[in-house]
Amino acid sequence: MTKSGGRGGTERLVVIGGDAAGMSAASQARRLKGPGELEIVAFERGRFTSFSACGIPYWVGGDVPERDDLIARTPEEHRARDIDLRLRTEVTEIDVAGRRVRARDVDSGAESWTAYDKLVIATGARPVRPDLPGADAPGVHGVQTLDDGQALLETLARARGRRAVVVGAGYIGVEMAEALINRGFEVTVVNRGKEPMSTLDADMGRLVHRAMEGLGITMVNDAEVTGIRTGDDGHARAVATAHAQYPADVVVLGIGVRPQTALARAAGLPLGGHGGLLTDLGMRVRGHEDIWAGGDCVEVLNLVSGQEQYVPLGTHANKHGQVIGTNAGGGYATFPGVVGTAVSKVCDLEIARTGLREKDADRAGLRYETVTVESTSRAGYYPGASPMTVKMLAERRTGRLLGVQIVGREGAAKRVDIAAVALTARMTVEQMTALDLGYAPPFSPVWDPVLVAARKATAKVRAAAAAGAAS
Amino acid sequence: MTKSGGRGGTERLVVIGGDAAGMSAASQARRLKGPGELEIVAFERGRFTSFSACGIPYWVGGDVPERDDLIARTPEEHRARDIDLRLRTEVTEIDVAGRRVRARDVDSGAESWTAYDKLVIATGARPVRPDLPGADAPGVHGVQTLDDGQALLETLARARGRRAVVVGAGYIGVEMAEALINRGFEVTVVNRGKEPMSTLDADMGRLVHRAMEGLGITMVNDAEVTGIRTGDDGHARAVATAHAQYPADVVVLGIGVRPQTALARAAGLPLGGHGGLLTDLGMRVRGHEDIWAGGDCVEVLNLVSGQEQYVPLGTHANKHGQVIGTNAGGGYATFPGVVGTAVSKVCDLEIARTGLREKDADRAGLRYETVTVESTSRAGYYPGASPMTVKMLAERRTGRLLGVQIVGREGAAKRVDIAAVALTARMTVEQMTALDLGYAPPFSPVWDPVLVAARKATAKVRAAAAAGAAS
Repeated sequence: MTKSGGRGGTERLVVIGGDAAGMSAASQARRLKGPGELEIVAFERGRFTSFSACGIPYWVGGDVPERDDLIARTPEEHRARDIDLRLRTEVTEIDVAGRRVRARDVDSGAESWTAYDKLVIATGARPVRPDLPGADAPGVHGVQTLDDGQALLETLARARGRRAVVVGAGYIGVEMAEALINRGFEVTVVNRGKEPMSTLDADMGRLVHRAMEGLGITMVNDAEVTGIRTGDDGHARAVATAHAQYPADVVVLGIGVRPQTALARAAGLPLGGHGGLLTDLGMRVRGHEDIWAGGDCVEVLNLVSGQEQYVPLGTHANKHGQVIGTNAGGGYATFPGVVGTAVSKVCDLEIARTGLREKDADRAGLRYETVTVESTSRAGYYPGASPMTVKMLAERRTGRLLGVQIVGREGAAKRVDIAAVALTARMTVEQMTALDLGYAPPFSPVWDPVLVAARKATAKVRAAAAAGAAS
Repeated sequence: MTKSGGRGGTERLVVIGGDAAGMSAASQARRLKGPGELEIVAFERGRFTSFSACGIPYWVGGDVPERDDLIARTPEEHRARDIDLRLRTEVTEIDVAGRRVRARDVDSGAESWTAYDKLVIATGARPVRPDLPGADAPGVHGVQTLDDGQALLETLARARGRRAVVVGAGYIGVEMAEALINRGFEVTVVNRGKEPMSTLDADMGRLVHRAMEGLGITMVNDAEVTGIRTGDDGHARAVATAHAQYPADVVVLGIGVRPQTALARAAGLPLGGHGGLLTDLGMRVRGHEDIWAGGDCVEVLNLVSGQEQYVPLGTHANKHGQVIGTNAGGGYATFPGVVGTAVSKVCDLEIARTGLREKDADRAGLRYETVTVESTSRAGYYPGASPMTVKMLAERRTGRLLGVQIVGREGAAKRVDIAAVALTARMTVEQMTALDLGYAPPFSPVWDPVLVAARKATAKVRAAAAAGAAS
């Protein structure tokens, strides 16, 4: 049943985007269906496939020696698995009614149409580039692609001085601050928000702020960048805000990404409030039986808030690809949603969150109690025990866990997984107090920090219930 | 309502045992009821209270400098909270019908009766001492109490040579092997089982075996100790098995513990198949409204197997104490059971387990699939990424998670918490594949090792279902 004009007896799966979601989907579909049953064509605008964007800060910082270390699977490896991968080929139009895509060879400019029976949209994210004077000057870098990383490394190698300014204090911003410190730069982070890491509540972001200062990073909060000042040679020389100028030999933009969905929008596919594609639980684009979408171009359901959220993370992209490939390959799989887990670090400071922040819970219409506890990563008497702060949100009355934020040193980040699983299982904080977590002095106090928080949250929920049964 | 003969208007709570469970119970009851309402009398045979037995190997090994570092709360601190703590006072009889206990002053031998309204039994565990020639010789040490640790340290300091033999290769055995290596001893571990760490399946124990050998530890498996040979001075000089003799300047016994329930047995209280007290979910001794028991002298429900189990761990003892103290103080709390989580390490090797081993699942009447995967602690390209082996058991047909075992380096042990929470929530391995766990290159590969195992287990459960719907 060649609907696509593919080779006799086969269907054709077309994949737009050769990174985590797209190539995971292609690989998984190939596992389920051989080339005699399913032809797979993948279009990628760039020169690389399946690379770890999350690894770029560590390559720039020198922890990862080579660019190619970040490539999980090369174009040749994909081709060896009978995936017709077309690099430097940009899809410029999706014709949903005609079941075909138009693609342009980036080098020659030549365009042609390719028919599909099944389509995967994995167009990823585009970095937010501020509309500011000087934002495109030499010396100003994003860190979205491997080419971005290479260009930044070249700028660092040639830099006249050792002053770096990072614009933005989210995950990319703080990871790039670490990378630049590791390269011997003096780092200033300019942040629009009240505290760094706006994915945490401000009281927890404040802990990150203090720790960053302890690492010698200059942290400028509440500061809107108004422009990048350039020198006579046109090269970036300073980052300007309304109140100050921060000299810079290199400027790194880490102000987040948006779903890259212009193609999908033009094709009339359904987008959500964050600009990402909307899918069903099988990662099918809503209303379109044979079109799937995944990775940084989609919105996902937050299982705690019950609302769609935009969470561009490689771990989700890989899961989406796996689910899409299974379904496109004739199997059955679902992606039920996320709970909002994210972990990061700045040097030895670990930062983690899952579930809802206070403002997320407010927005979701939830009432809650919050507690914050100080504990340690190991038994207090064991060498290397380091302080850890855990903030926990629990729903009023029901005591259901709503969110956890952790800031600490070694062992802080991955502890959030305990809460991530508990959120998925919709546990109450009281149920959590009985969790049978791993205990030995080198790994945890006898009450794990997450359990200490759960105990305190239980007491607070109970006290609130006792204080006002009607409230 | 002075039933006990306590001071006017108060009830009396008597606690037998001044360690984790007993003193946590006493402290929590005191939080809920002041001394005007509740008199609390605690009897402790030894000289210490609330010490971390789990920390003894690290004190012996030198990681923890001082004995007193292991004491969470001193007798004076307990007394300052209006707990009438009587050290070196051993309870010799419980008169259930008469609601009183008989106690003996260890030093003077004087005995007297104390009435109670409420009783907490927290008599702990006794170490298994083999009935072998030489087992009581100087130079042979258990590591159950602080006095044991002190005596062992003195033997180590005076030892003629540097050869140590550890009998037993469970948690205490492997932790003591590490401690003795840290003290500069050549260590031989003599183990009755096929592989060390019988709390793991033998295939995973085999990985521990190899790693211990890599650390320079001589591992002797399948070996039953027949006696301790002593020198002319009566001091232990070798450990003998049927087939060999292992020279020893010091011998450490790490062959486990049993519930210390002779008192309870004599009082006619209900004991289970493992010799531990049986309680309800509120930690009340079954059939006895005003007697609670917790810590190393009770059996607990394993939530995965549905069977009673003996799990002497400080983390449970503390939870038991908390629950008992809440209930004895007039509140309400429960201890629903365990899932069988335990973590340990030998030098940089981390060992973890939760849920059921193959033989536990067999014994519980469960059919299952097993998978074992190799992954890494961090993104493969990130410095310090170390190999990690994860074994997973899933129930046939339902795919419910039954157990996880992990052997690896940094980051291996506490990963088992993911599975511990999933077991508590009775998740299937397929549900686990969608878990939103923390991902960043320094902390995890994009698919966390536990998720890699869950994916493989899901595939195996599905394949088994497809292969034989009737099986």
